[in-house]
Amino acid sequence: MASTGKYKSDLDTPCLVLDMNVLEQNLQKMQAAVEHAGKNLRPHVKTHKCSSLARMQIGAGAIGVCVAKVSEAEALVKAGLDNILLTGPVVTPRKIERLVDLLRTSPSLMVVVDHPGNIELLDAVLRTRGMVMDVLLDVDVGLNRTGVRPPDALALADRIVALPHLRLLGIQAYAGHVQHIRSYDTRKHTSYQCLKEAIRVFRELRATVPTCTIFSASGTGTFDIDLAVPEISELQVGSYACMDTEYLEIGSADNDARFVSFDPALRLLTTVISANHEGLVTVDAGLKSLYKDGGKPQVIVPENSALEYNWFGDEYGMITSTDNSELPPIGTVLELVTSHCDPTVNLFDSYYLTRGKEVNGTWPIDLRGCSQ
Amino acid sequence: MASTGKYKSDLDTPCLVLDMNVLEQNLQKMQAAVEHAGKNLRPHVKTHKCSSLARMQIGAGAIGVCVAKVSEAEALVKAGLDNILLTGPVVTPRKIERLVDLLRTSPSLMVVVDHPGNIELLDAVLRTRGMVMDVLLDVDVGLNRTGVRPPDALALADRIVALPHLRLLGIQAYAGHVQHIRSYDTRKHTSYQCLKEAIRVFRELRATVPTCTIFSASGTGTFDIDLAVPEISELQVGSYACMDTEYLEIGSADNDARFVSFDPALRLLTTVISANHEGLVTVDAGLKSLYKDGGKPQVIVPENSALEYNWFGDEYGMITSTDNSELPPIGTVLELVTSHCDPTVNLFDSYYLTRGKEVNGTWPIDLRGCSQ
Repeated sequence: MASTGKYKSDLDTPCLVLDMNVLEQNLQKMQAAVEHAGKNLRPHVKTHKCSSLARMQIGAGAIGVCVAKVSEAEALVKAGLDNILLTGPVVTPRKIERLVDLLRTSPSLMVVVDHPGNIELLDAVLRTRGMVMDVLLDVDVGLNRTGVRPPDALALADRIVALPHLRLLGIQAYAGHVQHIRSYDTRKHTSYQCLKEAIRVFRELRATVPTCTIFSASGTGTFDIDLAVPEISELQVGSYACMDTEYLEIGSADNDARFVSFDPALRLLTTVISANHEGLVTVDAGLKSLYKDGGKPQVIVPENSALEYNWFGDEYGMITSTDNSELPPIGTVLELVTSHCDPTVNLFDSYYLTRGKEVNGTWPIDLRGCSQ
Repeated sequence: MASTGKYKSDLDTPCLVLDMNVLEQNLQKMQAAVEHAGKNLRPHVKTHKCSSLARMQIGAGAIGVCVAKVSEAEALVKAGLDNILLTGPVVTPRKIERLVDLLRTSPSLMVVVDHPGNIELLDAVLRTRGMVMDVLLDVDVGLNRTGVRPPDALALADRIVALPHLRLLGIQAYAGHVQHIRSYDTRKHTSYQCLKEAIRVFRELRATVPTCTIFSASGTGTFDIDLAVPEISELQVGSYACMDTEYLEIGSADNDARFVSFDPALRLLTTVISANHEGLVTVDAGLKSLYKDGGKPQVIVPENSALEYNWFGDEYGMITSTDNSELPPIGTVLELVTSHCDPTVNLFDSYYLTRGKEVNGTWPIDLRGCSQ
């Protein structure tokens, strides 16, 4: 990217910036780890909602991407991407029509299924179009959100195999409830425990259904733990690219106090707009630009400060100091690591791309608001 | 609005719908109450982020609108609206340039100020353009977020009056910390207490500065309490139009268990997409389409059910039953009152407008994402 002659200090706030050096390092590190384990990377785009970033992940070696919603897949296909896995079931007749419309443009599109009625409806729509679609069996490993329970998995797999317009390519098993367990050892133990049944299901399928070669799993919190599981064939990690304090606060393999595998590439800029009160100043980022979820946002510029952010209504945040040091005056721009990257990214229309103090361009967050 | 021949049951989910009968009733009720008290209504658009809804409020008798951010004002002016009050300070040179650019198109634009440095900067920019801008003095009444403290208010007012390019039209005093106090009597008492000092400031200004006639205050939770304050000249209420469970859970003048003054016009539609687990089903609305803040979202369709919603990650929600009654099957669409309307509206690009089961059109949420 060419320089725009623009600096971070020229940006109106609140806004999101991506530190490109950190982002590239995160992408390379995950790609190298996955390749070293002989597996594939299909990163989850629901985190960053950006087709340009997805294209960079594919450029770094990813075999495709994951999305959570049909509308996200539509936006990616429109942007020219393919090899998309939709990681949630699509169940209503109208949404299935949208999915199958998209399949015509993007034949590599895959979707997960978890219910007998759903697979019959999907097969019926595909039949009327004379099409075949690749599916993964979503196996619940204890999150209890989507997915067939392991004891019912093989029976449902048999029904999928019997349907002429579906082709079963494997399973998905996402342990979402394990990703943020603080202790690395507990996380590792819990992850292995909850994947056991899914591994049994996958071995059985692999032995009996020749097309079953995909075992899609993992999240940023268990990426290295899952790389050691021989059956897992591809990782659907998302947050590693941008990172947030929710992940920075969990332990990692070689540091039980902090997650050191990836660094925060995503930052929020916010400006002090009022300073009339003892012990606090007010900034221009609140609930609507920094999603109130996950850990505590972390002030990283000014560096090594004792400043803390707290939400202060829809449009405002409160900055206090933990050591009674001087608070920044009106007009000061602070840089924060967000608490939960996914829903915060979804509040903005673009990222500013930075290297050091320079702004080198922008990327549209073109999947923003794609919740259907 | 003409019928589109479309029904609520035709809508893909998650999506936001506005019950137009309820919305019209809310707007009329607030307008009538404000007029009956001999005051003006300048509703806050930060809640609904929609220029079409703002135009309906003005059609019902509002004298203008309030916004929280410069970018919201820009979007409204682009949509042809005027008489806009910006309820937060604008402090950086670049943001002040944007503000003054907008003032040229919309000379009725007003902004609040709360700091000596800020008024001097604003006056200096206006001087270079040869323009004068109307301002209100933001007086802090205990929220401690923005605003000058009452003991410092008159001194700051003197400095504003001395600046040739600012015209002081009055004060703003927003008691945001009082709006959601559950007990009506406590809320009333607290509201009067915290407005006392601002009233004293306003009386003094009104007596000495002939242009000072505006006292902008109030929120949905204290609207009727503030209508009884003689000095308050206009109300900047926002949530009354759409409503949410956070407001429905506070007491009102004639019902201490529930806020009965306004009804929920805003609803979120969400579909059951997975049902493999004892005691719960999964719906397609999570953090990214129903902001996790405020009260608990309330399931209102199916009517009189014992169903409860809980967040279940970025893209999913969990539906349980408080009385172990049967849970809705896959494909069922539920209708929810959102927990905190403002940040939830900001997650969507449009409202579907409904009367009964019919969809009569859509309104773009054209201020969505305007956080600067």
